[in-house]
Amino acid sequence: MTLHILGCYSATPRILTNPTAQVLEINNHMFLIDCGEGTQVQLRKHKIKFFRIKHIFISHLHGDHVYGLVGLISTFKMLKREAPLHVYGPKGIKELITLQLKLSNAWTDYPLHFHELENKDSEIIFEDEKVIVRTIPLQHRIYCNGFLFTEASKDKKLNLNAVLNYNIDKAYYNSIKKGKNVTLESGQVISNKELTFAPEPSKSYAFCSDTKYDETKIPLLKKVSVLYHESTFLESHAHLCEFTGHSTAKQAAKMAKKAQVSRLILGHYSTRYGDINLFLHEAKSIFEQTELAEDGKRFEF
Amino acid sequence: MTLHILGCYSATPRILTNPTAQVLEINNHMFLIDCGEGTQVQLRKHKIKFFRIKHIFISHLHGDHVYGLVGLISTFKMLKREAPLHVYGPKGIKELITLQLKLSNAWTDYPLHFHELENKDSEIIFEDEKVIVRTIPLQHRIYCNGFLFTEASKDKKLNLNAVLNYNIDKAYYNSIKKGKNVTLESGQVISNKELTFAPEPSKSYAFCSDTKYDETKIPLLKKVSVLYHESTFLESHAHLCEFTGHSTAKQAAKMAKKAQVSRLILGHYSTRYGDINLFLHEAKSIFEQTELAEDGKRFEF
Repeated sequence: MTLHILGCYSATPRILTNPTAQVLEINNHMFLIDCGEGTQVQLRKHKIKFFRIKHIFISHLHGDHVYGLVGLISTFKMLKREAPLHVYGPKGIKELITLQLKLSNAWTDYPLHFHELENKDSEIIFEDEKVIVRTIPLQHRIYCNGFLFTEASKDKKLNLNAVLNYNIDKAYYNSIKKGKNVTLESGQVISNKELTFAPEPSKSYAFCSDTKYDETKIPLLKKVSVLYHESTFLESHAHLCEFTGHSTAKQAAKMAKKAQVSRLILGHYSTRYGDINLFLHEAKSIFEQTELAEDGKRFEF
Repeated sequence: MTLHILGCYSATPRILTNPTAQVLEINNHMFLIDCGEGTQVQLRKHKIKFFRIKHIFISHLHGDHVYGLVGLISTFKMLKREAPLHVYGPKGIKELITLQLKLSNAWTDYPLHFHELENKDSEIIFEDEKVIVRTIPLQHRIYCNGFLFTEASKDKKLNLNAVLNYNIDKAYYNSIKKGKNVTLESGQVISNKELTFAPEPSKSYAFCSDTKYDETKIPLLKKVSVLYHESTFLESHAHLCEFTGHSTAKQAAKMAKKAQVSRLILGHYSTRYGDINLFLHEAKSIFEQTELAEDGKRFEF
């Protein structure tokens, strides 16, 4: 998995900071998560082959998460895209985009599919043989979802010694990796357990922005490989969290600790702070495996 | 008058080029003309005090002229604007903006007034004691207006020698400058002509983007101080003009020459050309007083 941070600041785009957008590369998929104003330029700047994006996930309809979407959709048209594009986001997102296309008399030539979300419980919204994507219902000022990306179950690993020992033909290897037993010519059944090792654990990435601190989502986040959790404020501004529907760095770290995740990435910083290392310092006091998102930064998991 | 070019390229925003947006400072007004994606960042980058903008003029609803508007309107709210904002643009612009504000549950706290245009003839859309703004109906693929900004008629200049000669009290000076005659105590009427010189000529700025070459608008553009005319293509691509509703540099220069304007500024370049000096060269062969718009460039008239 590779995570490209295109923008990780809250509120308004500025000269050196961008609103939320990130690209997750996972098992050959290239998913765009949120799309604040300027995202298409950030994609170019960081040399991401954005034609490979086939699925866009929008957490909520505040401007700093969605105002760059219609421009990207239009640019795809101008650049002669033909491949279908799927957009997942809150109910209303279809009207938001199609009204703008209608007024500019510029419908897309490529298939544009909207998957509007309104469920308040977690649900699977995308699934193929490589990846499953679930919503993480978040508590913000308007309807908002995070997204949990999980690699689909991987094949078991072949126990080559055992397989050779039983003189099993290579033609069976694939079915063994999928969990099947093998019946030898003698009629003896060799259980799959004897022939395989456990598969590599599936990696997972949870994107949680924007949200208040909310322990009810811990079960969904349990032991994910990487948690991106917003930290709009430091504890010194904790009193603003309830009203604005945001979290502090400390709260993000508490969430990471309680959910026993492997790594925590902070982002969605309020632009009121001069030094984002303050977020890191605050979170690390609770959860050591914390890192800072920064515009243009790339994480490899 | 000062013209700040924030963006002067067509189609999609890129790393080094921005879609159309410009700020015209005229007689203490600060008018924003068009607002492509990224305009608010360009305003910051070029240190324009954008809180002084009270009137925004949108030529048409193609993305490269309007996708940055909702973000700017939202940013004004976040930065606690209180002054009213007036937006002039094609019918539909109100719905375009208000739908997005509604979906993000983020109405403005300041008064936001829309002035929707649908007239196919030129009309005065703004007028005060300093400036008059008229539409310039353009021929593009969708309903589109250019805008003609003209300084309101200036006061005549006082002929000080004549005034002193007649021993006229200073209390009359203002009315004389406004064109009034003066009746002396003797009953003798001194005609205004004797007491004044002609006022300084009013400056004017005409913004024409996007449009096909269209001689019917020459009377409106007659002798303007500065004409900004789109030149999306070079003559080598003239065959694309009819279909796309655009002009070549040569056509822009022809328009400037026939309308006898003082200066021509080219812009709205297609990003297919590596060197915008090609536009300058082509136009200058027809109209010498041609200059190139460039993102970040400032013109003083």
